[in-house]
Amino acid sequence: MADKKIYSASTTAPVNIAVVKYWGKRDAKLNLPTNSSLSPAAALSPRTPSRQTACFRELKALRKKLEDANPSLPKLSEYHVHIVSENNFPTAAGLASSAAGFAALVRAIANLYELPESPTELSKIARQGSGSACRSLFGGYVAWEMGQAVDGSDSCAVEVAPASHWPELKAAILVVSAAKKGVSSTAGMQATVNTSALFAHRARDVVPKRMEAMRAAIRNRDFERFAAHTMADSNQFHAVCLDTTPPIFYMNDVSRAAIRAIEALNTLEGRVVGAYTFDAGPNAVIYYREKDEEKVLGFLGELLAPEVAEWAGKYAKVALEGYDNKLFEALKDGVSRVILTRVGEGPIRTDDTLIGTDGLPSKK
Amino acid sequence: MADKKIYSASTTAPVNIAVVKYWGKRDAKLNLPTNSSLSPAAALSPRTPSRQTACFRELKALRKKLEDANPSLPKLSEYHVHIVSENNFPTAAGLASSAAGFAALVRAIANLYELPESPTELSKIARQGSGSACRSLFGGYVAWEMGQAVDGSDSCAVEVAPASHWPELKAAILVVSAAKKGVSSTAGMQATVNTSALFAHRARDVVPKRMEAMRAAIRNRDFERFAAHTMADSNQFHAVCLDTTPPIFYMNDVSRAAIRAIEALNTLEGRVVGAYTFDAGPNAVIYYREKDEEKVLGFLGELLAPEVAEWAGKYAKVALEGYDNKLFEALKDGVSRVILTRVGEGPIRTDDTLIGTDGLPSKK
Repeated sequence: MADKKIYSASTTAPVNIAVVKYWGKRDAKLNLPTNSSLSPAAALSPRTPSRQTACFRELKALRKKLEDANPSLPKLSEYHVHIVSENNFPTAAGLASSAAGFAALVRAIANLYELPESPTELSKIARQGSGSACRSLFGGYVAWEMGQAVDGSDSCAVEVAPASHWPELKAAILVVSAAKKGVSSTAGMQATVNTSALFAHRARDVVPKRMEAMRAAIRNRDFERFAAHTMADSNQFHAVCLDTTPPIFYMNDVSRAAIRAIEALNTLEGRVVGAYTFDAGPNAVIYYREKDEEKVLGFLGELLAPEVAEWAGKYAKVALEGYDNKLFEALKDGVSRVILTRVGEGPIRTDDTLIGTDGLPSKK
Repeated sequence: MADKKIYSASTTAPVNIAVVKYWGKRDAKLNLPTNSSLSPAAALSPRTPSRQTACFRELKALRKKLEDANPSLPKLSEYHVHIVSENNFPTAAGLASSAAGFAALVRAIANLYELPESPTELSKIARQGSGSACRSLFGGYVAWEMGQAVDGSDSCAVEVAPASHWPELKAAILVVSAAKKGVSSTAGMQATVNTSALFAHRARDVVPKRMEAMRAAIRNRDFERFAAHTMADSNQFHAVCLDTTPPIFYMNDVSRAAIRAIEALNTLEGRVVGAYTFDAGPNAVIYYREKDEEKVLGFLGELLAPEVAEWAGKYAKVALEGYDNKLFEALKDGVSRVILTRVGEGPIRTDDTLIGTDGLPSKK
């Protein structure tokens, strides 16, 4: 190559914790799902990932098309690409870190190549790297429409509502274990598709109705319905994992204590204050509204103390009358860390590059 | 009453741990199930239960019919009845103790009243006390046919095979916790029927085929198929519990470790040696064949030592190469007791009465 110039582009991409879960591929090569899924984007920012992927080919082909149409453009499609990524989220513990990583990869290279494709178009490429990555190309409330086409051309992410439509939604993530999970999502979901007798019923009959109900709940900012569907979908996702041969368990006794705690909180308050959901790992994600933050964090602070003793002081003490404290004991030992986040923006272009002027990772 | 004579009858009745599970009533008053179920009878013997029940009315009515037809019979239907029961099994911990209790109640009173009804006829009465009690009126391999009639007249237990057909079947019960369970079966199963979107599919489409497959496995003494269906049905039963709102958990981290242990044993042996199943509680029931007892108990002995250290000496040591011992650690602390049993006989009439000559419980 004659041109030795270095081009760089950096981006963040949000983690997303689905409230209608993706589980099961109808085409493993193209990462085409057996059902649609839906998630709020969380305001957290890994950067371009280190893992090489099939996404490259498609992004390079799109750049090549631009170059062919306009010969004055630098021939970036022929350049080597250096990728540097960092992640502020526990990886491979079922917290959607790979989704954010792949979304950031696709977004950063699309920026580098100055591709005109929309986030929805790019989501089809990100999907091939990691299914749920397609949702992390958007902020706010995002649906991954499963699509029907065999080639996957209609299986892509679309915005349900921007973050500004319902900005009150927040989340507390109880990191139960940052240990890598036992069964990878990819292996796990194929085992479920192949062996669970209940799975097809979920994909065909349950999720389509739930997607509609969830869209309506978000449109109407109806937290109660949002919460009911979020909890039911999480439980059903883990139910089909358990209905797999051999059975897949992602939740453990600590996760179960988190469920009982949120049930107790909602009962004590006499209304739905918090909603739990669990991805492919034991960590509990608790969705709640900003106006209820004191209640939720005060309550969790009581149960988790002394780990987050400052919360127990900061927020009103919640009396757990009528409950056997043993129900929640597992939380004290089992939760190692709490991450607070809120519904946030999609990928954000940044000048804070991780690549040095020599084209190599910058030293810190 | 003129006649002050005391009449007594005593019986045992076996516990049964279903391999195709009963979960869900289509008529709560009549205890009519939403699907058929199947169990081997275990050779364990509680006696008549202390709980009073609706079963009485029907048994008395049957006795009255006999007395009306034959005036020379003593009018036992007008007598008070004293019931004394004892149980050698942990109660209300999801180990089918109430099933054995109700079966013993019905069998003992039928003996007392000298009723000519067959076990299948009596099973319709026992069913009304506790659904799965109907299966404990038989020994060997027993199916509870759900039936279709609105009045429950065809919802009864039938023998699939006597114990002598396949006597090699044994079971090791890992008692994880004898604590009472959180959600009673009765409340739990109605919540599942009302809220689980996957439940109807199980009852309608999965269990009928599994009942046929299980009957065939028992007919052919095919342990591998018996084991595969036993484990899949247990997992699916707990999956629909998890798909309930609010979710029902009977298994805990100790139960999960027991599943992983049996999977490891089967993998190490290169064939299906053990099959786990869990009723409405955390206790693991491990079915195996007599010829494999050394392998199964030796393996469990290793994992449970020092609780059952004598096993580890008695049976060959099993090397757990290639496994992370942490997977099984929960078993050591979590299993309080192991009960060994085998497929056994139905209720057995005994002269060893618990009632004294004064008609009151005898002192011990």
